[in-house]
Amino acid sequence: MLILGIDPGGASTGYGLVRLEQGRLVRVRSGEIRPSRKSTLPERIRFIYDGVTELLGSLAIDEVAVEDLYQGVNPRTASRIGHVRGVVLLAAAESGVPVFEYPPNEVKSAVVGNGLATKEQVRFMVQRILALSAPISSSDESDALAVAICHCHRCGEGVVGR
Amino acid sequence: MLILGIDPGGASTGYGLVRLEQGRLVRVRSGEIRPSRKSTLPERIRFIYDGVTELLGSLAIDEVAVEDLYQGVNPRTASRIGHVRGVVLLAAAESGVPVFEYPPNEVKSAVVGNGLATKEQVRFMVQRILALSAPISSSDESDALAVAICHCHRCGEGVVGR
Repeated sequence: MLILGIDPGGASTGYGLVRLEQGRLVRVRSGEIRPSRKSTLPERIRFIYDGVTELLGSLAIDEVAVEDLYQGVNPRTASRIGHVRGVVLLAAAESGVPVFEYPPNEVKSAVVGNGLATKEQVRFMVQRILALSAPISSSDESDALAVAICHCHRCGEGVVGR
Repeated sequence: MLILGIDPGGASTGYGLVRLEQGRLVRVRSGEIRPSRKSTLPERIRFIYDGVTELLGSLAIDEVAVEDLYQGVNPRTASRIGHVRGVVLLAAAESGVPVFEYPPNEVKSAVVGNGLATKEQVRFMVQRILALSAPISSSDESDALAVAICHCHRCGEGVVGR
């Protein structure tokens, strides 16, 4: 079972591929899709879409888990993150891979045991759960791994919104 | 000069193709891209993306004008509209067509002369400006034609956000 976790963001979209092997979670690959800040908005969105499409095409991913909108975000930011979520959902639909969504507090609860955990706590626990020898370099990357871990724990309860 | 105006929405995305011919605005085609309500969110987003891509592929469109977020919208709605805007911007980027954004009050000002005009007033004025014999059937369609008209009036001032 191979899960692609995505933490959508306009400046940087984190991704984390996690394999569930005999009840153990193993990191396969993770990183950030980071378009150039000099690009136009449509170019940046295309860059993220191409990156996600490439990930979905390169490995036999079973399911995609996406971090949902966090509460208290302003409408302008929600729209900008919505752009990225839109092209992630599109790439998944085109690949025929089911998508699941989890709100940030649920992701934090699944990984840290506290829905109000800080990004640092999430990063620390993701490293422990996946038994990584080195710290994860960015919080977008650890958040993406966290949503993939959350999905494995919840067995796909986070059905995508309608 | 052929302009595609888009009014993005999750339930229905309006589109309006307007040609600027010797200072006169002519409607080429307009309508709604309306995915099935029974589809999942990723399927609906894909339906809208395919619809916009088809429009961009079928005619030599010079520029795309998209209605920007209206103020006072809640973050959840902003995110849902953001999904659609994301795939519209992606389709435009893939077609190499420049995109321009206009806030709703600017669109209303350009068409009705009042930034607080109602949807009915916009629909009435769009019908007059384009000299259409029959009323426009939906406000998503007339809003899309309105943003195309606004773009023609403003000569592409509405540079897409970064």
